[in-house]
Amino acid sequence: MSDEDSKIGTYHFVAEPFHVDFNGRLTMGVLGNHLLNCAGFHSTDRGFGMASLNEDNYTWVLSRLAIELDEMPYQYEEFTIQTWVENIYRLFTDRNFAIINKDGKKIGYARSVWAMINLATRKPADLLALHGGGIVDYICEEPCPIEKPSRIKVDTQEITSTLVAKYSDIDINGHVNSIRYIEHILDLFPLEMYKMKRIRRFEMAYVTESYYGDELSFIKQKVAEGEYHLEVKKNEQEVVCRSKVIFE
Amino acid sequence: MSDEDSKIGTYHFVAEPFHVDFNGRLTMGVLGNHLLNCAGFHSTDRGFGMASLNEDNYTWVLSRLAIELDEMPYQYEEFTIQTWVENIYRLFTDRNFAIINKDGKKIGYARSVWAMINLATRKPADLLALHGGGIVDYICEEPCPIEKPSRIKVDTQEITSTLVAKYSDIDINGHVNSIRYIEHILDLFPLEMYKMKRIRRFEMAYVTESYYGDELSFIKQKVAEGEYHLEVKKNEQEVVCRSKVIFE
Repeated sequence: MSDEDSKIGTYHFVAEPFHVDFNGRLTMGVLGNHLLNCAGFHSTDRGFGMASLNEDNYTWVLSRLAIELDEMPYQYEEFTIQTWVENIYRLFTDRNFAIINKDGKKIGYARSVWAMINLATRKPADLLALHGGGIVDYICEEPCPIEKPSRIKVDTQEITSTLVAKYSDIDINGHVNSIRYIEHILDLFPLEMYKMKRIRRFEMAYVTESYYGDELSFIKQKVAEGEYHLEVKKNEQEVVCRSKVIFE
Repeated sequence: MSDEDSKIGTYHFVAEPFHVDFNGRLTMGVLGNHLLNCAGFHSTDRGFGMASLNEDNYTWVLSRLAIELDEMPYQYEEFTIQTWVENIYRLFTDRNFAIINKDGKKIGYARSVWAMINLATRKPADLLALHGGGIVDYICEEPCPIEKPSRIKVDTQEITSTLVAKYSDIDINGHVNSIRYIEHILDLFPLEMYKMKRIRRFEMAYVTESYYGDELSFIKQKVAEGEYHLEVKKNEQEVVCRSKVIFE
């Protein structure tokens, strides 16, 4: 194993029956869940996971996620996710992923951007100071041939739908969980869309937290054929997150 | 390994961060998903799983599910599910489960009732004739000290809430998936309820299928302190499923 290989975490999965959509393909929400779990496994194994950070009163916060795929695993198929750290800046780190199908072929990639915050002050922490700067030892040269998360702009105020955040939306921190936004956003498209097309690229930009009982309003803007920009607001005011969905 | 032990399937899990609720406890929907997966693993390993049945034009249909627990696994905790076949009748089979915590203690049990149908005719199949009657060899004497699924009666017509079945509700068969009903039903209770109490027993009775675009209406009746009977109807007519939730 080369020095670079040892910096890559490799995790195995199977596309479970209740995790696939009506096409029999893994849903984007479940893939997102697996990616975030892999980020957790990889950082925990290297001593900077959520649990050890929480002890020191810090936590990771997901800021951006971009996923681009040639295909999604089919029901009961095995697949593999690899993850590694691409860059570490003072206030952000870039973590990338490869999604590998049952035959060992890379079928997609993902990019994520994370910050670390102090749980007491909610202020961002200096990543380069973490573990005496030891975190930079994990930077890995592995290529990730998809575009970085982009700036997402929504130019309309027209609300497509609304919902109130419920029990099953809420995570252990009392926030609507990052995966639920993905599911709610993808529910804005009709089944016909998923019959004719598939999602080639999906992006999330997490802006602020929402809570139990918040009214979430969803704004969906078509910006090109198959390309949609979306915005989620809470209580008709503050932007909670934005998303970009490109079908092909 | 005794003859009875060899009939029990044992599967290991961990309570993932996006699979726990605001209390940090595994959600009932995720537990249900794991139970149904274990049923699939166990039957597939013994040659009567979904995949081999589908080849012969048959499929398993879940009719009842009852889960009773002393506690739920906490975030990041490992837990184990065991499953075995209790009985096989001509048209139904009883499959039971034990849920075992990280310390090896049994913290709960579940019971399920399944039928098999012919995919072409949608008619029930004779289980005792399956594989020349070989399925009865898997009947196991393991105890399951919780009550069988009960008859659930809802005496009101008052609708608590409605929703329209969306993309993320639909499974590979084009039906609203069994786990989504659990999530939607548990979303009928306010967060306050889950702060003060926990679910001791949860039951589902699946009656008929619903589809994309169906309007699902939810009727919730309080029948005793902490005990609720629920009914889900599609398009204000046909009963899709019923549920019983007992908080303590």
